[in-house]
Amino acid sequence: MIELVPEALSPEAFAPFGQVVSAGVSAGVSAGKSANQGTAVRFDWTCRFVNTRDGAQPNLSVFRSEAKALPFPLKLLERHPCSSQMFVPMQCARYLVVVCKSGPDGMPVLSELRAFLCAAGQGFNYDAGIWHHPIIALDSAAELVMLAWEDGGAKDCEEWALPEPVTIVRGG
Amino acid sequence: MIELVPEALSPEAFAPFGQVVSAGVSAGVSAGKSANQGTAVRFDWTCRFVNTRDGAQPNLSVFRSEAKALPFPLKLLERHPCSSQMFVPMQCARYLVVVCKSGPDGMPVLSELRAFLCAAGQGFNYDAGIWHHPIIALDSAAELVMLAWEDGGAKDCEEWALPEPVTIVRGG
Repeated sequence: MIELVPEALSPEAFAPFGQVVSAGVSAGVSAGKSANQGTAVRFDWTCRFVNTRDGAQPNLSVFRSEAKALPFPLKLLERHPCSSQMFVPMQCARYLVVVCKSGPDGMPVLSELRAFLCAAGQGFNYDAGIWHHPIIALDSAAELVMLAWEDGGAKDCEEWALPEPVTIVRGG
Repeated sequence: MIELVPEALSPEAFAPFGQVVSAGVSAGVSAGKSANQGTAVRFDWTCRFVNTRDGAQPNLSVFRSEAKALPFPLKLLERHPCSSQMFVPMQCARYLVVVCKSGPDGMPVLSELRAFLCAAGQGFNYDAGIWHHPIIALDSAAELVMLAWEDGGAKDCEEWALPEPVTIVRGG
């Protein structure tokens, strides 16, 4: 059995998989800029959104995820080949994001699995096609908004069953 | 001086101005549906996104807003004539959303000003062109994600100075 230990989420560590959405992080050239008559700071263009299908529309969905206990066994991964996918927590304690690099055949390379420990105030955006596990809420149920371009077809989401068990052994 | 008292945010009360983003609310025909092997519920298509400019792109921005005290004087309104605008709180206590209907000339009708009291777990999406005040964070600083289609031009945001003072007198 493969055991996986989460690491802390940071823009640099997550860069091969997508972008971090958090106050203080701008993916573009600009840092934060003043807004609302100087009473707010905004950090723009945090996500590189991708949609490769003309008929797909941006679906802003709210997810309510049950809390999971550790150790947690992973059974499958999924990907959205034609769209980026963003998650931003509205109400949560800690949660885990599990991602995996692809091999030359486009399928996940299990030895490249990585888990990131996230908290309130930290969202992220998967690049299109990145293999990942559904979000794993820890400590308490979590509510997150999700944004992906969808058309209701099979390309919205592809799944892959893990050929051997992988367990996340602790929260970081 | 006009005094304005906030009301509670609900999808029905907010309907003339846009959509509420919250677990349990679906703007489309479907209620929540099971996801992630039965460990999550998702509420889809919560926002009616609008973008009327070919060159505008979806800007996912993080706002950090200072906390304001009540009574709070309003001085201006703004609108985004070509794009919807969504806000979802990542970290917040309470916050106020102030909106205003337009008259036949497209300008705000001050007697139609309304304020909504919102909390953690409640986001919303302004329809394109809806006049509104910048978000007013109460109790503590707030961090919210914003999504609007922008191109950097003058149509991204139009402002209007209030011809007479309006004060929000209490938090609800």
